Amino acid sequence: MSDEAETDHSLERLVFFSDAVFAIAITLLVIEIDIPDLPKGASVGSYGHALNSLIPSFAGFFMSFAVIAGFWAAHHSAFSLASTYSRRMLPWNLVLLGMIALMPWVTAFLSRNLNELVPTAVYFGVFTITALLNLRLVFIATDAAVSDPGQMPAVLIRRRCIGLAAGAATAFCLSFVLPGPQRFMGLLAVPLWIRLLTGTLRSSVFARRNETPAA
Amino acid sequence: MSDEAETDHSLERLVFFSDAVFAIAITLLVIEIDIPDLPKGASVGSYGHALNSLIPSFAGFFMSFAVIAGFWAAHHSAFSLASTYSRRMLPWNLVLLGMIALMPWVTAFLSRNLNELVPTAVYFGVFTITALLNLRLVFIATDAAVSDPGQMPAVLIRRRCIGLAAGAATAFCLSFVLPGPQRFMGLLAVPLWIRLLTGTLRSSVFARRNETPAA
Amino acid sequence: MSDEAETDHSLERLVFFSDAVFAIAITLLVIEIDIPDLPKGASVGSYGHALNSLIPSFAGFFMSFAVIAGFWAAHHSAFSLASTYSRRMLPWNLVLLGMIALMPWVTAFLSRNLNELVPTAVYFGVFTITALLNLRLVFIATDAAVSDPGQMPAVLIRRRCIGLAAGAATAFCLSFVLPGPQRFMGLLAVPLWIRLLTGTLRSSVFARRNETPAA
Amino acid sequence: MSDEAETDHSLERLVFFSDAVFAIAITLLVIEIDIPDLPKGASVGSYGHALNSLIPSFAGFFMSFAVIAGFWAAHHSAFSLASTYSRRMLPWNLVLLGMIALMPWVTAFLSRNLNELVPTAVYFGVFTITALLNLRLVFIATDAAVSDPGQMPAVLIRRRCIGLAAGAATAFCLSFVLPGPQRFMGLLAVPLWIRLLTGTLRSSVFARRNETPAA
Repeated sequence: MSDEAETDHSLERLVFFSDAVFAIAITLLVIEIDIPDLPKGASVGSYGHALNSLIPSFAGFFMSFAVIAGFWAAHHSAFSLASTYSRRMLPWNLVLLGMIALMPWVTAFLSRNLNELVPTAVYFGVFTITALLNLRLVFIATDAAVSDPGQMPAVLIRRRCIGLAAGAATAFCLSFVLPGPQRFMGLLAVPLWIRLLTGTLRSSVFARRNETPAA
Repeated sequence: MSDEAETDHSLERLVFFSDAVFAIAITLLVIEIDIPDLPKGASVGSYGHALNSLIPSFAGFFMSFAVIAGFWAAHHSAFSLASTYSRRMLPWNLVLLGMIALMPWVTAFLSRNLNELVPTAVYFGVFTITALLNLRLVFIATDAAVSDPGQMPAVLIRRRCIGLAAGAATAFCLSFVLPGPQRFMGLLAVPLWIRLLTGTLRSSVFARRNETPAA
Repeated sequence: MSDEAETDHSLERLVFFSDAVFAIAITLLVIEIDIPDLPKGASVGSYGHALNSLIPSFAGFFMSFAVIAGFWAAHHSAFSLASTYSRRMLPWNLVLLGMIALMPWVTAFLSRNLNELVPTAVYFGVFTITALLNLRLVFIATDAAVSDPGQMPAVLIRRRCIGLAAGAATAFCLSFVLPGPQRFMGLLAVPLWIRLLTGTLRSSVFARRNETPAA
Repeated sequence: MSDEAETDHSLERLVFFSDAVFAIAITLLVIEIDIPDLPKGASVGSYGHALNSLIPSFAGFFMSFAVIAGFWAAHHSAFSLASTYSRRMLPWNLVLLGMIALMPWVTAFLSRNLNELVPTAVYFGVFTITALLNLRLVFIATDAAVSDPGQMPAVLIRRRCIGLAAGAATAFCLSFVLPGPQRFMGLLAVPLWIRLLTGTLRSSVFARRNETPAA
C-alpha cells in the first residue's frame, strides 16, 4: 500500500546517496593497509621484505575493490532502468548500504588473518548476505522494466545478480571445505555462475538489438 | 526579511552537500570497530572469542547506521516537498550536519563503554539534540507544502519527526532510570511515538489518495 | 585568452567536486577527537574528567566546522551567480580545496596544543591563506554578475568575503599579541569586519528588492 | 558488440561516482600526516623542530594533491566531450579509480621514507600505471569527439594525457638513476612533456577559435 510513485527527484537523491556510500567504502579500503616505516638508508632487500608482508593487504584491497565495484555496477544498471521511485526501495537500499559500509572492516579482518577459516567465512558470509540484499533491491528496481517486453536488459541484469549471489554462496560454502590458501578459489564461482546464467540470454539480447535499431 | 526565494539550484546544492555529509558520517562509523589480529593458526574458539568482544561495536554500528539513515530519510522526505530555497534553511541545516558528523564519535564512545550511564546519556543526549534540530529544519522545509490542502504528506512527515524527537528525549530520560543493559530499551520509544502520532493520519492520507488519482 | 566559456556541465561538475571535498573535510574533523576508553564500572566523576579533557578537541571541532561551513556557504553563494564556466576558476578552486583539505590537520594540531603560540598562529595563518584564495575565486565566479546592475548580491557576497579575509588576518596578527587563552578572541574580528563592510549595503539591497518584485 | 549507447543518465552517474572517489582520495591524504603533540608550554623552537620534521609529509600531501587534481581535471575535460555512455568506459574507469584510491597509501609510504629508492620508485610506478589507465579512458571518452573536425579540444586533451603518461614514465625511470633528494626532479618531466606535445597545437586551436565564433 505504501508503494505509490513519487517524483523522479526522490529516485535521483536515493541513487546519489548510494553512490556516495559506495565511493566512500571503496576508498576507505586503503586506510587499513599498514604503511612501512623503515630506518633511514634501509636496504632494497628490507623494503622488499616489508612490501612482501603487505601482499595480503593489497590482495584484500583489490578483491574488495572489485566486489564493491561489482555491487555498484549492479546498482547502476538496475537503477538506470528504474523510472519511478518506489518506497519499497528505501529500506532495502539502506540495509544494502549498511553491508557495503562493513566491507572495509571484513576486508581488514581477512587481510590480517589470511588463509584462516573464520575470517574467510566471515568475509564470504557478509559477501553472500550483501549479494542477497542486492538481489532483492535489483528485483524491486527492475520491476516495471521487466514486464516491458522490449526491455530484455532487465532480465539480463537480474540473472547476473542471481549469479553473483549464487557465486558468493558457493564461495562461502567452499571456505569451510577447502584448505588454507585455496579458500579463495571459491571466488571463481562468481564468474562461472554469471556466465552460466546469462550465457544464452546475452546472445538473444544482442540478436534482438540487431533487429531493432538502438536509439 | 532575508528570506526571499532563490534559484532551485541553491536548494539542490544544499541537498547535495547534506547527502555527502550523511553518507560520509554513516560510512565512517565502521572505522571505529577494532580489527582482531590473531596469531597464525589461532583456533576457531579464539576467533569466536575475539568476535564476541566486538559485539558492542557492531551493535553500536548498526544502531547508529539506523539513526543516521533515519535522519537522512527525514531530510529526503521533507526536502522532496520543498520547492523553493529559503535562506533560513542554511544555518539550521549546517548545525544539523554538525551533529550528524559527531555521530561516529558518540557511537565509538558508547561502544567502548557499553551499559555505562554517562556514554549512554551522551549518546541519547546528542540524538535528542539532533532530532530537535531536524524537527526545526523539517518544519522550515515543509513550510510551503503544509499550507497546501492537497499536501497531506507534509503533515505526515512533520508528525514522524515530532515522534522521532519525542522518542529520543524519552530514551535520554530513561537512560538515567533504567539499569545497565536495559538502557537501550528506551530506543523502543521512537517507533512507539511515531506510530502514536501518525497512526490515524496515515489512514486518512491513503483514503484521500484513493479519492484523487495520484500524478 | 584561455578563458572562453564552456558548457554548464563543466561548472556543475566543478561545484560538485568542491562540495564533496568540503563535505569530507568537515566530516573528517571528528576522527581526530580521542575516544575515552574507561574501565568497566568507572564512576560518573571519572567520565566527567575524561570528557572535560576533550573540551579543547570539541572546541576545535565546532570552530573548524563553522570555518569550513562558512567557506562552503561563500562558495555556494558565489557560484549560484556564476552562469558560465571559466577556465580561470579551476586552478584557484583546486588550491582552495587543498587548503580546505588541510583543515582537519591544523584543527587537530591546535586542539592538542591549545593556547600555545605556534599552533594558534599556524591555524589562523592557514585560515587567512584560505580566506584570500576564497576571495580570489569568489571574485572570478561573480565576475559577470557584478557588472550586471540588477545583481546587487554579487557585491554583497564579495564584501562578505573581504570581511572574512580581513577578520582572519586580524586573528592571525592578534595571535602573536594576545596571551594564551585569549588568542581566540581574534576570531571575533570576522563577524565585526563582515558587519562593517556589508552593513550599509545590505539595507540598500533590500530596499532595491522591495522596489522590483523578486522572481 | 557490447558497446551500444545507453542513456545520458548512466554517463552522469559514472562521472558522479568518479568525482566522489577522486574527492575522497584527495581529502584522505591529510590523515596520514602526523599531528605533533608537544608538552604544555613547549618553546617556539621545539614547535619549529616538530613542524620541520613534517616537511616530507606536507611535500607528499601537496604533490599528491596536485597529481590527483591533475587526473581529476583530465577526467573532467575528457568527459565534458563524451556525449554518450559507452560500456567500454566502465571497466577502465573502475581500474583507474582503484589506482587513485591507492594514492594516499603510496604518498604516506613515500613521505615516511623520503629520498629512498624503493618508495620513490613505487610512487612513480603507481603514478605511471595510473597515467596509462587514464590515457586509455580519455581515448575512449573522446572517441566520438575526436573524429568531429570542429572538436580540436579532444586532440588537445589527448596530447596532454600522453604528456602526463610520458612524464610519469620518465620520472619513474629517473628515480633509479638520480641520487637521493634529486629523485623528485623527474617530476619536472611532466610539464616539459605536456608543453612539448601541446605547444604548437594550442596556438592552432586558438587560431581556429578566433575564426569561428564560440557558442
